[in-house]
Amino acid sequence: MNKGLGDRIDSGMDGLISDLQAMIRQPSVSAKKHGLVECANLVSHIMQKAGITTEILNLDGKENDIPPLVYGEVKSKVNPKGKTILFYNHYDVQPEDPIELWDFDPFSGNVIDNYIYGRGSSDDKGELITRIKAVESFLKTNGDVPCNIKFIVEGEEEVGSPHIEEYLTKYRQKFACDGIIWEFGYIDENDRPIISLGMKGLLYVEIIAKGPARDAHSSLAVLIENPAWRLVQALNTMKDNAGKILIKDWYKEIREFTPNELSIIAKEPFDEQKFKREYGINKFVNNVTGIEVCSAFVGMPTCNIAGLFSGYVGEGAKTVLPSKSMAKIDFRLVPDMNPEKQLDRLQKHLKENGFGEDIEVNYIHGERAFRTPSTDPFVKQVEESANDIFGTAIISVSAAGTGPMYSFAKILNVPCISVGATYLYAKIHSPNEFARIDFLNKTTKCIVNIIEKFASSKQQDS
Amino acid sequence: MNKGLGDRIDSGMDGLISDLQAMIRQPSVSAKKHGLVECANLVSHIMQKAGITTEILNLDGKENDIPPLVYGEVKSKVNPKGKTILFYNHYDVQPEDPIELWDFDPFSGNVIDNYIYGRGSSDDKGELITRIKAVESFLKTNGDVPCNIKFIVEGEEEVGSPHIEEYLTKYRQKFACDGIIWEFGYIDENDRPIISLGMKGLLYVEIIAKGPARDAHSSLAVLIENPAWRLVQALNTMKDNAGKILIKDWYKEIREFTPNELSIIAKEPFDEQKFKREYGINKFVNNVTGIEVCSAFVGMPTCNIAGLFSGYVGEGAKTVLPSKSMAKIDFRLVPDMNPEKQLDRLQKHLKENGFGEDIEVNYIHGERAFRTPSTDPFVKQVEESANDIFGTAIISVSAAGTGPMYSFAKILNVPCISVGATYLYAKIHSPNEFARIDFLNKTTKCIVNIIEKFASSKQQDS
Repeated sequence: MNKGLGDRIDSGMDGLISDLQAMIRQPSVSAKKHGLVECANLVSHIMQKAGITTEILNLDGKENDIPPLVYGEVKSKVNPKGKTILFYNHYDVQPEDPIELWDFDPFSGNVIDNYIYGRGSSDDKGELITRIKAVESFLKTNGDVPCNIKFIVEGEEEVGSPHIEEYLTKYRQKFACDGIIWEFGYIDENDRPIISLGMKGLLYVEIIAKGPARDAHSSLAVLIENPAWRLVQALNTMKDNAGKILIKDWYKEIREFTPNELSIIAKEPFDEQKFKREYGINKFVNNVTGIEVCSAFVGMPTCNIAGLFSGYVGEGAKTVLPSKSMAKIDFRLVPDMNPEKQLDRLQKHLKENGFGEDIEVNYIHGERAFRTPSTDPFVKQVEESANDIFGTAIISVSAAGTGPMYSFAKILNVPCISVGATYLYAKIHSPNEFARIDFLNKTTKCIVNIIEKFASSKQQDS
Repeated sequence: MNKGLGDRIDSGMDGLISDLQAMIRQPSVSAKKHGLVECANLVSHIMQKAGITTEILNLDGKENDIPPLVYGEVKSKVNPKGKTILFYNHYDVQPEDPIELWDFDPFSGNVIDNYIYGRGSSDDKGELITRIKAVESFLKTNGDVPCNIKFIVEGEEEVGSPHIEEYLTKYRQKFACDGIIWEFGYIDENDRPIISLGMKGLLYVEIIAKGPARDAHSSLAVLIENPAWRLVQALNTMKDNAGKILIKDWYKEIREFTPNELSIIAKEPFDEQKFKREYGINKFVNNVTGIEVCSAFVGMPTCNIAGLFSGYVGEGAKTVLPSKSMAKIDFRLVPDMNPEKQLDRLQKHLKENGFGEDIEVNYIHGERAFRTPSTDPFVKQVEESANDIFGTAIISVSAAGTGPMYSFAKILNVPCISVGATYLYAKIHSPNEFARIDFLNKTTKCIVNIIEKFASSKQQDS
């Protein structure tokens, strides 16, 4: 990469960190609707400071209900009619719970050596700042960017982006582009960025078992059915001990891997021992190993209990028969599973197993999975950009996580690729989330590379 | 009963209510160690005001760790060497959770018409005040009591009375007596007091399933075993859908009912429709009906989930794979089940079903069940006393609930009988617990009767 750009990024790290700290210190928990408008305004301000023109977008008549989207744009002076790259990110974060397990205030932005701590430090405020600073380095060094640049920074990613389709549809002209850099990307324990070409889908539900009209004294368990037991029994019909989902036709629409995808999976490195040590476990689900591990990451649907609650959970003993019981379940989906169809199957399954009257399934949200074809030329541009900065990059057919990639790809009709600054063990969604400052620096440079390669590929392609 | 005593009780109802309100307004949640010493001092003060000599008792060297016991005594002047009746009560209460379901402050003591609301209004501060006021009515009317009277008011009943045996052993001479009136008794929907001759035992445990070292992103459910699933699987091995506990030898030591007990059970009335309406249910566990309902109340062991917790249980969605999962389980026991032996069986069961390494069972407490023989003369005295005030009383072989009756009966070697003022639907252990003021009045009179009959029976027996 151009030395002037690299030097500017290196000398600007203090500014990057202080802008990231400002973002972390503004809580923006979408699940709790906490601080979202404030954070959108802050992000807009930081983008403007970098030279990006911004707009706060809303959906008509829903300004007070739905978090705003921050849109950013920089027109290339040298090539205004050329290609456009779009950066998709989000300013909302996961809830900070369980708060008692944090070593610092979750919104402190504390810096210790190479680490910056706080909810959102990696996911996704840390990623966002690398995109902003990459664009800023072009503008401050050359007064221009080599291709047109757009930003979409939404505020509901951590609750499943329920309105991103509506935004994409309403503003599809404004958002038109030729390629999308996704909001995050992992870097593994050997400093290798993992370039993901897809994302899994998700079906998130709450299952509620209803018992007596009110909590009762537990001595009445001789007569009154306990909804926590009913919930346990219902859950137990859904999955076997080996991880297999027992709901009828659950796996029916799954698309098989292409030969090219299979060869990518076979090449993907994964340090099983390091992963086990990191999470303090001694075996994997169903004892998978080797290539099965990478296949599972890329292509295995899951049925995960994300939350369980019933009755008394405080200190000591309370002898209560609870009036209801709740489980939060997230199912990861893969192409071509459809969340609505899977929800129907779940409901039918419960009914057929005798959990019709007293068990209620509340849909929280659903997203479809998507994969960019591994043969798209954009893949090579991103891979070469990352190799240049990190030495080696890893290509992955899909991330294990979920995002609204399907909506972007379907509505804007472009390839989407994930690459980013998030250390594989950065504790995202967990207490003590952090970002590595060396990775923030390198990823900013990698994004500069991608912009340059993407811009010049334009001339080659046209 | 003596008209002067009855009139004094009627005219003293304002005082009874204001003393009960004072007790309710002093929170005393033993599970949270909240307000216990303060409540003991308040109870002692109210007893002294009634003419009862009190002492605050402690266990040696544990004054700061274990809640005090309030001891009360009134020597009979007319019959100082005669029999002694002992009232066992408790000043601690259940936790007020879930607080959001209360219509008032749980510690308000609000009076509306015939109801007084608040945690402890029935269980057990409402019961305690009837005993105090009965004794006070003798002292204020006659300046004496017809037999010796003792009070034990402990502060750990709602957490399973873990130190009552130690107190009973240390103070066995001081507590010596000839019969015990237990801390509570139900009154049914037809104003009939239920005189219980026994109590069930209890084994209360926490079952903890341990997963990864910290909460993880739920996309990792492809590899990391989820402890909430492990907990669901473990619980599911413990009980079948009909309520039968599947742990080996669980029912082995259960004592069969005597013919006399069976005839009492057969006579026990129970309004199934009213009960179902009250709790908003349309069937009983295992669809029992008729005599099976009363048998279950009196003699069926249970395995009840009192609490479930794992992961994220707040608003909206969080895609987390929790690091641990917890269930609180209370098992009701009947004679002659031994909680320690049952705990061993539970642990063995889990191990044998493959839940050895990642599942931990924490013992919270245990108590044995006890039944006073239905042929004891004290039973008739209490029954006649209740019939006199309420018209009809019901005899029950055992309550469905638990208390340390076994320890009292074993150490003091006397019959124990439950009778009291608690309306069957008074929402004890639930939000909006209340006491009925008419029942507080009648039960105070019933206790006066019991004291008189017990005192005079002394002359007959000796």
